[in-house]
Amino acid sequence: MNPETYYTERKNKFLDKLCEYLRFPSISAQAVYKKDIEACAEWIASYCEGIGLNTQIFKTEGCPIILASSPVRRPGKKKVLIYGHYDVQPPEPLDLWKSPPFEPQIINNAIYARGASDNKGQHFAHLLAVESFLGSQNEAPCDVIFLLEGEEEVGSQSLTKFLREHKDILNCDCIVVSDSGMPARNLPALTYALRGVVALELIIKGPSHDLHSGVYGGAIENPAYVLCKIIAGLKDDQGRITIPGIYDDVRPLSAEERLQLARLPFSEDEFKKQLGVVKIFGESGFTTWERRAARPTIEINGITSGYQGEGSKTIIPSVASAKITLRIVPDQRPERVYELVRKHIEGACPDTVTLSIVPGHMGEAYITSYDSVYSRAAIDALRKAYGVEPVLMREGGSVPIVTEFKKILGVDSLLIGMALPDDNPHSPNEKFDIDSFYKGIEMSMLLLEEIGKI
Amino acid sequence: MNPETYYTERKNKFLDKLCEYLRFPSISAQAVYKKDIEACAEWIASYCEGIGLNTQIFKTEGCPIILASSPVRRPGKKKVLIYGHYDVQPPEPLDLWKSPPFEPQIINNAIYARGASDNKGQHFAHLLAVESFLGSQNEAPCDVIFLLEGEEEVGSQSLTKFLREHKDILNCDCIVVSDSGMPARNLPALTYALRGVVALELIIKGPSHDLHSGVYGGAIENPAYVLCKIIAGLKDDQGRITIPGIYDDVRPLSAEERLQLARLPFSEDEFKKQLGVVKIFGESGFTTWERRAARPTIEINGITSGYQGEGSKTIIPSVASAKITLRIVPDQRPERVYELVRKHIEGACPDTVTLSIVPGHMGEAYITSYDSVYSRAAIDALRKAYGVEPVLMREGGSVPIVTEFKKILGVDSLLIGMALPDDNPHSPNEKFDIDSFYKGIEMSMLLLEEIGKI
Repeated sequence: MNPETYYTERKNKFLDKLCEYLRFPSISAQAVYKKDIEACAEWIASYCEGIGLNTQIFKTEGCPIILASSPVRRPGKKKVLIYGHYDVQPPEPLDLWKSPPFEPQIINNAIYARGASDNKGQHFAHLLAVESFLGSQNEAPCDVIFLLEGEEEVGSQSLTKFLREHKDILNCDCIVVSDSGMPARNLPALTYALRGVVALELIIKGPSHDLHSGVYGGAIENPAYVLCKIIAGLKDDQGRITIPGIYDDVRPLSAEERLQLARLPFSEDEFKKQLGVVKIFGESGFTTWERRAARPTIEINGITSGYQGEGSKTIIPSVASAKITLRIVPDQRPERVYELVRKHIEGACPDTVTLSIVPGHMGEAYITSYDSVYSRAAIDALRKAYGVEPVLMREGGSVPIVTEFKKILGVDSLLIGMALPDDNPHSPNEKFDIDSFYKGIEMSMLLLEEIGKI
Repeated sequence: MNPETYYTERKNKFLDKLCEYLRFPSISAQAVYKKDIEACAEWIASYCEGIGLNTQIFKTEGCPIILASSPVRRPGKKKVLIYGHYDVQPPEPLDLWKSPPFEPQIINNAIYARGASDNKGQHFAHLLAVESFLGSQNEAPCDVIFLLEGEEEVGSQSLTKFLREHKDILNCDCIVVSDSGMPARNLPALTYALRGVVALELIIKGPSHDLHSGVYGGAIENPAYVLCKIIAGLKDDQGRITIPGIYDDVRPLSAEERLQLARLPFSEDEFKKQLGVVKIFGESGFTTWERRAARPTIEINGITSGYQGEGSKTIIPSVASAKITLRIVPDQRPERVYELVRKHIEGACPDTVTLSIVPGHMGEAYITSYDSVYSRAAIDALRKAYGVEPVLMREGGSVPIVTEFKKILGVDSLLIGMALPDDNPHSPNEKFDIDSFYKGIEMSMLLLEEIGKI
């Protein structure tokens, strides 16, 4: 039997199995679901075992990690690590769900359940691709390791530790991560770059306690005003960051990259409507996709100072603070960016107040070649599966685990999401289209074949 | 017997009576003390009655108001309204008190108790001055009305209503308000001007919900940034407000006024230490006292936006808002100032966000002549009582009731505080110096005599 036949004959059964998997309320954020997390880990581990993978459950301080590998290492065969997470977001608010989040239902050719698209449906598709090979011809075109964690929605702490401690058994040629979406229905994408992050908090201290603004107003500097003044000086009217040196290391977008980003669907009206903004605004000289994906940005995440309740309180606040994050791009280095920001803010702060800058988390930007043998294999697989030329994407967010893979294992990731833009991950009524699921299995089979040919 | 003898013979008794008055926990802010408020009102009313004043307790929706007047209106005699409040601030935090707040104790020649200086001690001194006249010679140099309220610490709502409803019986020639302090020990002051206030809230709306700053950062305007930009544009580096027209109506300080304000004690080091600031800063061209008392200021009272908890949350906040108050001076009109601010902010806000400005409370500045017959009478009384040339002051805060008196009764107030700068009103260990108390009685007697001569 060939793998395609094996798969075709079992399409219904695969869907049933996915629904079974989706019934576990494997919510990592809430301790009360610890037993469900464990039951879910056991279920998927036993599924891996059942299709012929060597499977181990690793206990951690948090949720179990599952490692399921091809039984024997075949010399000369490529080894592919496929990452996924079996934990899900909490389903709240429950009253907004049209069907119970942990009782999967098929409506309009989509499976509605928490975790359907993020991420059970996606990594399970990869697993079923491998099953189709193993079940039909006892071996896959390449060796595989499934690495499934249960803490993605709460920060993947155990996994990072696990990577460091089990570097040797995780050695592989490439990594496949399907934990995101396609930019549009029937527009497959290979994401080859992600932005990094530099977080900091800015604290301005004025008087030692809140002061009466009638009695003292005008006689001392107001720390909230200074905070605003400093923040206002971080960008110009063209949306450019004004911190000297900040753009020095930014790798310019190539003509090909801009062409690819221009292929991404974009309607200004829809974008405005989706975000609820009255106008689009960003760094001049760049498109919205370029701004989101490939340009550095500095964003105020929160500000707090003085009285914030109802009505008014006539005070000069003692303290004002702001949480700020920069998204950085290749080849900016987080430490250098932080230093530039720090120096600029220190220079901008008057000597009438006390300034402190508290560094937060930092993460490097990620970029890999879209022209490597593995990228080309992924592009070929996507093209064959979806019948459309895949787009080469950069994404604005960070996927910390991809940076960890690169740092600890030294291996690049192929980011190929199967979800659709309307799949509602992290929201009520999460779904995964049945077509997305089947196409995902087919794409994964093609991908393993393409990598096998390298 | 002359009034001075009457007073001198009863100094100890007067002090005992004040202590009795201070035992009532007449806390207007906390409903649980309603009975104590009423008992306190009855005690002071019965004291007024006892010294020969026609006394009435008026029930209100809040705390009782006491009116105690000279028994007969003597034609040709000036009529003086003396204002005070028998309610006190809550004493918390209790553990910082060295003695129980409602068990008055005499330590180092001062009475320690909540309300000692703010305001029982001060209006009681006036009452004892009147007693000294009535008790010794059956009449005071002028007719008096004591108007004592129990809601000063919670906004004087009932009193404002009372003024409107009882305008006729409150008719008088001048009003005496001793509810503040002297600028320094042995430096009596007549306050002839107060700043007014214009409050508003600024709300900037960006996206309809908080957005992921990785995915969207750089592609839309950040409302917290816009808020900061607008606020930063409200002042210049010289501490001047940059809103066009804002200084147009400001009545300049005369040379005499500046001379008087320069007489007020000021040590830059002590001021910095007291407020806990590293440097003094304000509008260039003016002294600290001038900035505090006689110049307009715009202060940020509070800012709120986005994530304010521990750690970081990488969002573009949906909303950012700031509470702002301006202190205004004669002859600025609150409505015009509000309009100037509104227009300026609207002009400064980009069209990438939605702006709303919510007006808050407004209050006019207050100024009266320091050269009127009543002011001169007060200055003479202060000089005689303290043996020092009184300083003519302007104060930065607002005393709303003074503006109400002016608006509703059409009468100016003589603001002559007896408290000392270290009396800790509103704080633990409130005290009133026994000397302040006695000097206050003496000053009040002199004041009534001086007004009687007009």
